[in-house]
Parts: sequence; structure tokens; C-alpha cells
Amino acid sequence: MRECEVLLVAGTHGNEVNAPWLFDQWQKDPGLINCHGLKLHSVIGNPVAREANRRYIDRDLNRSFQPELLVDQSLADLELNRAKELLDLHGPEGLRPCHVAIDLHSTTSAMGNCLVLYGRRPADLALAALVQGALGLPIYLHEADSAQTGFLVEQWPCGLVIEVGPVPQSVLQGRIVRQTRLALEACLVALANVRRRQGRYPRQLVVHRHLGSRDVPRDDSAQPQAFIHSCLQQQDWNILSIEDPLFETVSGAAHPERLDEGAAVVFVNEAAYAEKGIAFSLCCREVWPMQGTWIRALETLMVEDVQRGGPL
Amino acid sequence: MRECEVLLVAGTHGNEVNAPWLFDQWQKDPGLINCHGLKLHSVIGNPVAREANRRYIDRDLNRSFQPELLVDQSLADLELNRAKELLDLHGPEGLRPCHVAIDLHSTTSAMGNCLVLYGRRPADLALAALVQGALGLPIYLHEADSAQTGFLVEQWPCGLVIEVGPVPQSVLQGRIVRQTRLALEACLVALANVRRRQGRYPRQLVVHRHLGSRDVPRDDSAQPQAFIHSCLQQQDWNILSIEDPLFETVSGAAHPERLDEGAAVVFVNEAAYAEKGIAFSLCCREVWPMQGTWIRALETLMVEDVQRGGPL
Repeated sequence: MRECEVLLVAGTHGNEVNAPWLFDQWQKDPGLINCHGLKLHSVIGNPVAREANRRYIDRDLNRSFQPELLVDQSLADLELNRAKELLDLHGPEGLRPCHVAIDLHSTTSAMGNCLVLYGRRPADLALAALVQGALGLPIYLHEADSAQTGFLVEQWPCGLVIEVGPVPQSVLQGRIVRQTRLALEACLVALANVRRRQGRYPRQLVVHRHLGSRDVPRDDSAQPQAFIHSCLQQQDWNILSIEDPLFETVSGAAHPERLDEGAAVVFVNEAAYAEKGIAFSLCCREVWPMQGTWIRALETLMVEDVQRGGPL
Repeated sequence: MRECEVLLVAGTHGNEVNAPWLFDQWQKDPGLINCHGLKLHSVIGNPVAREANRRYIDRDLNRSFQPELLVDQSLADLELNRAKELLDLHGPEGLRPCHVAIDLHSTTSAMGNCLVLYGRRPADLALAALVQGALGLPIYLHEADSAQTGFLVEQWPCGLVIEVGPVPQSVLQGRIVRQTRLALEACLVALANVRRRQGRYPRQLVVHRHLGSRDVPRDDSAQPQAFIHSCLQQQDWNILSIEDPLFETVSGAAHPERLDEGAAVVFVNEAAYAEKGIAFSLCCREVWPMQGTWIRALETLMVEDVQRGGPL
């Protein structure tokens, strides 16, 4: 008899310490978070990196779930091995298969509590809509960016990231733990309701659709020539004017670079993105009417499985 | 002919990126910061760790300047070698000897712009008094703590740390760069004035004297059982009531631990101190009248040397 199984991942990045700590507390006190009858598997994404208090050891685990990397037998670094292991264990065809993956992250950017989706998969949109309907969290829809691929949740039929900030890497902070728990609990309530065909969907979904990313201006030796302008500090989700300066030099001069259009900024000053050449990302706020196809996609995953498994 | 030489160090911790970036800009534009006739040596403390974007490689460089470690020939890790190299180059008996060392740091704690002194060395107190008189920066006086020793500046006849926060590790931020520069410039003006016997000392020095540190409550396997209470968040330099809870559990309960007396907290949630077992430090605000011995100690270092070198 198969049950509907949900994979919960914390510590995919080893220096994002709040969600793994929440999992530790939950393990000690199983009543801390209500499972609502869902069969959950909680794992630490990158336990070796967590132990080392580093984002990753060999490569970013949350960029390692690219199909071409996963099938390449010549590659065997720590994170690729871990990606394969997680799929062998809990991938849709794994030993204890899961249909839904929820991956818990934190950020140094002032993003608040939010969801990140990768592409426009109908089941993801339905789950995000339920959580947004319950808590009002903003949604960052990452898509069409060939420079950033291979995210963990993309390998599961349905999945999203809970992203909470600002918090420095390696810092345990009550506000971040509380917000992570709140978003996680909202996901679990949503999935449990869908399983009972009682999902309460909003009429529409507000998404911030990824448009691209900007790096700081760099000199010939690739060193930053400027920093992010104070106009942008802690302005995540806000729409900038085309007049707003983006960068500022050490002498206090505004760098001439501007945005082409009025876009919102996200992930301003995420510490881990400097090495990826991202000072901040740009997105466009859109309101999408709720689609029946999204709802059916999520119900197919959550409810058919229950039917296979027998009566509720 | 010897001149009065001052050592300026940035990037003693490789993931504190703001001061090293300021040094890079200064190197490109030597007019960026006025040397006021001082002979300065600017170095990156731990260039290998900076390249790796980590605090350190083998051990914390800013705990490696312990006399017994520095003479131990059997130890040869990266940071101990670098400590010896810095002393060979710019130590008081080095190739290009310096009498004063200023070490630029950043912190994830909301410390603002401040100075850190190690012990009560008269010349350090005089320099700190000049900077406090000019800018009003708070001073954290670290002393009598056998668990934290071997700080870089202790190996120079006079030296202090400029500490600026809050900023996540690895994040370049305009506010931090500006405050670092401001404090550094105030140090240079102060030293140049002393050299001309024109130091303008305040009547008194306000110090926050180190009393000790507290770790989060831990379970039998040394894992944190609680996080720092929201009462303490961003309260650096403030005096707590003995009623204030210090820690909070995941269920929202205040942990029973309290302070014995009304002390001020500093370094609340410094990311790098978790591994040192420090959730925050405690200190006691004291007002000390300016001492002639402090002034003479600094003048002896700065002025006698000029006299050896010839007329100004």
C-alpha cells in the first residue's frame, strides 16, 4: 500500500542553518509540526556541507540536478553524488518515492518569507496559490534563465522552495525559524486539503516573473568597481524607477547604469550569488487567474495516489 | 632613515569583504584616502582565505598571534605561517617595521561602527580616545578572557580593530564601506596629529569592558536547544534588565537563563562566533578620565621615531 509521500529538505546549502535546526527540534518533538496525515520524509540536503558550515563542498547542490550532469558517470563530486542519492532514495522512481518536494532555504536578502517556483508547472502553481491564499506570501517565478539551472525541486513532479530572509549565513535567528515553520505548515495544510479534495484556492495568483539578473560593474580583472546603490538596499519586491541609480562607486558617485524599464528587484545582496555574478535579479509583477488545469495537476498527484493506496 | 610606519590590515578574515574592497579601490586611486604624511603599509591579512571566500583555511588568523604558537616550529598551517610572515615583514622587529597596526573587520552583529581594544595598553587607549573624541565611536575593551587570545594587533606596540556591522559575511555594502573608511581616516588623522604633537584628546574615554560571553543552551550532543531571544536582537551596546529573557525555544517559551546583573550585550548573533561557543558577549560601560601616561605612550611611539628619522 503506497501513501502520498512528501519530501522535505533543509540544509541543501550547508550554511543556511535555520531550517535544519527546525528539523532537529521537530525530530526531538514529533508533535512540533502537524503532519496532517501526510507521509513525510525530512532530510538534510547536504549534511557534509552543513557539518563544514559552508554552502557546498564541490559545487552548489541546488544547481546540481541537471539531467545531463546526473547521467554523467565520469562526474562524481560530493554534491553530484548526493543529488543522485536523494533521487535514488526519494525521487519519483526512488526507493521511497515522493511526489512533492519542499526545499527550505534562507537568504541574506530582505526577501521576507516567500516561495520560489521554477518554471510554470501546473501542480507547482496550484500549491503556491494555496499557500499564497493562506498567508499572502510573494512568489518569485524563476524561468528561462540558462545561467541558473539544475534546482532540486525540478526533479520532483511538484515542488517549490520556501525562501526566508534577511539572515546572515550561519546565523540561527528566531524570526527566520518562525517564518520558515509558518510557510512549511501552510504547505502541509494545503497538501492535506488537496488530498481530501478540499483545497481552498484563491481566484488569482500574483507572481513576480524572473526577467534576468544584473551583476555589479566590474573592471578588466573582474573585480567589482561599485557596490549596490543605497536606493536598492532592502527594496526587494519593490519596483524601481528608471531614474533610480543601481550602483555607486566608492567616491559616492552613482554609476550611470540604469534599468531599461520599471522592474522589481529581488535577491538584492544575496551573499552566495556574488560568485554567480548576480548582484540582484529583476522581475515583473503579474496577476494570473487561477486555472483548473493547475488544480487538476496537483489533485492528480495527491489524490490518485491515495486512491491507489486504498480508502482514506 | 626610518619613518613612522603604520600597518593597515584588511581581510584578516577572508569572508569580510568590505575593507579589502576599499583597499582595492584605494590602490587604484591613491588619492582616495589621505595618508597625512604617514608611511602606510596596506596588506590583505589572509589572501588565501579571501580567495576562497572563507573566514580562514586552517585556523582563525585573528586568534593565531599567540606567542607560544608563533615559536612552535612543529606547527605550520596556513594561518600560522601567515602570522609569522606578517610579523617578519611588518612586525616591530620586521623588515619594514611598523609601530601601529590597524586591523579592519566587519561583523554580522548590529555593532555599528566601533573600535575593539585588547587589554589596557596605554598607547591603544590614547589612539582610541582620539578617534572617539572625533567620531564618538563606542569602544569594546576585550580583556581577561583566556578562551579568546592571539589577536593580530596585540603583536604590535599599538593597535586596534575597526569593527563595522551588521553585514552578512561575503556581502559588499555601501554603508559598511563608508563607515570603515570614516573610522580608518579618523585613525590616520589622529596618528598624524600625534606625530606633530597636536593630538586633541577628550577629557575622558567611554569603554565597554568585556565581562564574559554566553553560549546558547545546548543539549547532550552539543546542539543548540534555543536561539537568542528577540529581546536581544539588534540590541548591541544596550544594557539589559535582569528580567529580560536571553534565549527562546522553538515552541516560543523563554528559556529560564537570565543575566546576573545589568550588563550590556555586544556581538549578538555574530555568525563566526557560533563555532567558538559565543552567542553574545557581555560588557560593562565605564567612563575613564584621560591619562597623561596614555598620551605619552602614544607620543613615544609616534614622535620619537620621527626624531630618529630627522626633522619633519
